[in-house]
Amino acid sequence: MSDKVKNKKENFIGIDIGGSKIMAALFNNEFKILSTKREKFKERTNITGGIEFIKKLVSEVLVGANLKIDSICGIGVGCPGPLDIDKGLVFEAPNLGWKNVPLKEILTREFGCQVRIANDVDAGTFGEYRFGAGKDARCVLGVFPGTGIGGGCVYEGKLFRGKTGSCMEIGHIQVQKDGPLCGCGKHGCIEAFAGRLAIAAAASVAAFRGQAPYLMEDTGGEIAKIRSKSIARAISAGDTVIEHIVRDSAKKLGSVIASVVSTIAPDIVVLGGGLVEAMPAIYLKEISAAIKEEAVEFLATDVKVAVAKLGDEAGVLGAAALIAEEAAK
Amino acid sequence: MSDKVKNKKENFIGIDIGGSKIMAALFNNEFKILSTKREKFKERTNITGGIEFIKKLVSEVLVGANLKIDSICGIGVGCPGPLDIDKGLVFEAPNLGWKNVPLKEILTREFGCQVRIANDVDAGTFGEYRFGAGKDARCVLGVFPGTGIGGGCVYEGKLFRGKTGSCMEIGHIQVQKDGPLCGCGKHGCIEAFAGRLAIAAAASVAAFRGQAPYLMEDTGGEIAKIRSKSIARAISAGDTVIEHIVRDSAKKLGSVIASVVSTIAPDIVVLGGGLVEAMPAIYLKEISAAIKEEAVEFLATDVKVAVAKLGDEAGVLGAAALIAEEAAK
Repeated sequence: MSDKVKNKKENFIGIDIGGSKIMAALFNNEFKILSTKREKFKERTNITGGIEFIKKLVSEVLVGANLKIDSICGIGVGCPGPLDIDKGLVFEAPNLGWKNVPLKEILTREFGCQVRIANDVDAGTFGEYRFGAGKDARCVLGVFPGTGIGGGCVYEGKLFRGKTGSCMEIGHIQVQKDGPLCGCGKHGCIEAFAGRLAIAAAASVAAFRGQAPYLMEDTGGEIAKIRSKSIARAISAGDTVIEHIVRDSAKKLGSVIASVVSTIAPDIVVLGGGLVEAMPAIYLKEISAAIKEEAVEFLATDVKVAVAKLGDEAGVLGAAALIAEEAAK
Repeated sequence: MSDKVKNKKENFIGIDIGGSKIMAALFNNEFKILSTKREKFKERTNITGGIEFIKKLVSEVLVGANLKIDSICGIGVGCPGPLDIDKGLVFEAPNLGWKNVPLKEILTREFGCQVRIANDVDAGTFGEYRFGAGKDARCVLGVFPGTGIGGGCVYEGKLFRGKTGSCMEIGHIQVQKDGPLCGCGKHGCIEAFAGRLAIAAAASVAAFRGQAPYLMEDTGGEIAKIRSKSIARAISAGDTVIEHIVRDSAKKLGSVIASVVSTIAPDIVVLGGGLVEAMPAIYLKEISAAIKEEAVEFLATDVKVAVAKLGDEAGVLGAAALIAEEAAK
């Protein structure tokens, strides 16, 4: 392959800025991964630090694929938090120390190619729509319970969007007015009942009460150590109280998803995120049952529920597919 | 005007099949009403009866406008209940005695023009989007509390739809698992708390307890007589307990709407229906407050809340606009 052909602008980079790590992947124009790189955040408290981090990852995936930046047609970025997708502005990304960062403009200038930013959950949902469990469905609702509970929707081939950016803030649907405090500052959001931290807190209490010996042995009952995988291990090992806690929170989440099904009538609900990846059978069963029981009957009948297929590659794949679509216009 | 010009296929008929009456209106191609006709159902227990009723109303609006059927480019019909909008099939319309009626096919054959059917609430929401309170907004959520609580959404100029038809079944979002029985057979739907019958039942109890003297005088406390207008009159006359009942149910509805705002992020929520028409200030205030307080902050900030402008003409206008769009394709 001559350098000329090799560096034809036909490849895409997808970047997924997560809660604790950034992942970048370089794809050819058939969305085959040519190279990939994941890295955890170090402490970053300013704009430059975060941008440098992204630049470093982009360089590394280029090196990994033995390509140069002039072979890249576009870069798609999935980014947490509220943003203005038209202006390419990230309103806030605390883990990166960002506030009102014109990410699209900065990256466009830096790399000299088209850039598109999207909410990270939207990018993941779009990935599952294009390549995963929701492939080509008319309306895909993605729900990703992990530390937070994110939602996204692809409707008739396009990301369903709010005025300036993403919507489907399923994690912050309020289920109990006087419920526990949520990370968003309100009380009783479903995330405060069914997010990973809420489950970990309840599991920790059970462990200290002596009701979850396996979890206690594995994690010492420390919330920071009670990750989705340790919860799953404890259940497999026989901590029935932990299983009860997880099922109960999955049911609560299922009730919220049922109300969203009654509203937007998806053809498929795709469940992903850390908790589902660790315990797919529990989430699939409880959420399917809640939808069947609580959603409007003629809509509940029509909807499939499935576990996401792409794992943590959904975000980079979706981000790359989003920029590829824009570049093709 | 010669007969030839007069009977050019440039007019549209909109039909709104409601819970207790049918309305038909004939529009020119600028959606000016040329004639209109409303009529209450008599008892009808078969398909033919309902179709004959529609035929009669179509004849009457034609006569009213001094036009013939060959001047009609298309007929749009808003119809309650689940339907298949692509096939033009009405799954069930109990008031008309209909079950699995191929309405589009029947009317097309009958009138020899294009026919489009839509859910009645969707048609009303589309009317408000095209001509009313939600004019040209990017995303309009229509909520119509009356005997039932209907919802509809126009997203980027098109009705947001489910697999076979309408969605946005806001009235049947469950707010309390062990709540009162709803007309749909489930328990605790918001309609069972905040629909007109639920309000009327609570108001009736208050009247019989002697807590609502004006309502008692006006209606004798009979639920069938406690219509939205009598509720409004009682509040104006000073029945504070009735006002409390209505505000409480409007707040509950507001909480549900807040969760829908967090999900689909409309630019505007348009409130219509019998209860809102009778008591617009109460609904506007309570629902606005609930959205502000309970929806995700960055989405609550962006959304307007407004009272519908078109009254009971929203449905016929929307239905006519929907068929006009299809005819223009």
